[in-house]
Amino acid sequence: MNQHFFITIEGSEGVGKTTAVKFIETFFIERAYPYLLTREPGGTPIAEKIRDMLLHTENEILAAETELLLLFASRVQHVEMLIKPALKQKRFVVCDRFIDATYAYQGGGRGLSIPSIQALETLTLEGFLPGLTLLLDAPLDICFERMQQRGKKLDRFETQSKDFFERVRQVYLERAQAAPDRFKIIDTSGDIPSVNAQILSILNVYCENN
Amino acid sequence: MNQHFFITIEGSEGVGKTTAVKFIETFFIERAYPYLLTREPGGTPIAEKIRDMLLHTENEILAAETELLLLFASRVQHVEMLIKPALKQKRFVVCDRFIDATYAYQGGGRGLSIPSIQALETLTLEGFLPGLTLLLDAPLDICFERMQQRGKKLDRFETQSKDFFERVRQVYLERAQAAPDRFKIIDTSGDIPSVNAQILSILNVYCENN
Repeated sequence: MNQHFFITIEGSEGVGKTTAVKFIETFFIERAYPYLLTREPGGTPIAEKIRDMLLHTENEILAAETELLLLFASRVQHVEMLIKPALKQKRFVVCDRFIDATYAYQGGGRGLSIPSIQALETLTLEGFLPGLTLLLDAPLDICFERMQQRGKKLDRFETQSKDFFERVRQVYLERAQAAPDRFKIIDTSGDIPSVNAQILSILNVYCENN
Repeated sequence: MNQHFFITIEGSEGVGKTTAVKFIETFFIERAYPYLLTREPGGTPIAEKIRDMLLHTENEILAAETELLLLFASRVQHVEMLIKPALKQKRFVVCDRFIDATYAYQGGGRGLSIPSIQALETLTLEGFLPGLTLLLDAPLDICFERMQQRGKKLDRFETQSKDFFERVRQVYLERAQAAPDRFKIIDTSGDIPSVNAQILSILNVYCENN
């Protein structure tokens, strides 16, 4: 199993992640690289059920610690049942959000204890990390404008305050600075072709060096 | 909040837990003690959804670590949203299975790492434990005979081997020996009146000393 083949896409709401993921998929299709596109939370039927519980809690308050444990439960299931088997088959695995999102959203956004997240990471992933993480980043005002333009009903995470998303962004950027070999930051404040050009240049180099 | 009011009932399949729980409920009703009867995994709508995922995984293999995290997720939700609020209102909380079941089933039965369970216990419960744990215990042959007499379809846990349940029982008994102040062992190998008499004598003493 080669973690080099495991690529994650991270970034806050409205940063252009959906568009970027589609572009990345096209990259793999055009080159006929075997790949698996997946997302967190989710990726397997059980993990998707957990995702649904996280996004739609109806009338019950979801305790912050419950949320954290559910995220790691879905992640373990996803890693063991989908991601690792695909990597063993020498496929690229492109995952829309992974462990960094937990630090950014639950640690930064909700203010949950970072040592608790680290303890759960150690317990569940045992050092398993992506070889490449593309962090999409843009100023918050641009992200909010894009979220409003979508016009769809917002979920539990998307209805958070600007402060929440500012903290999410900060943690993402801090993690990228702390692990520059794994992270590449994509500036998504410009138009789609400029974003795609950045992604293409990174993937071209990365995928040829495996 | 007084942990003295928090009472858990533990024991393997077929040990007579359902009958004992009904008898305990009657004890609280007859004395007009304010009480809450609940169970694990479950107890709140979110926690019950998690219970359902644990018991019915359909065609997907549930990774052992996923199971463990889901159990703790449902437990945190249950403790924070139901058990602690009830204890604050000075109600007795009677819970059908709690933390000891995780050590017995996941640790003993499935052979998951005990340090992992301890780490999750520390992270989520922070020392919160019942004041009294009634451990129902009987030789495995008696339990299996009772399970077969039930005649209903067995769930994921009930279809385990005899070895599995032997390990479950051993861990329960070891935990009881290690914490004799909290645990009372009820011998359920006899008939229902003899079991009820043991429970009654323990509860009479325990509930008058609060």
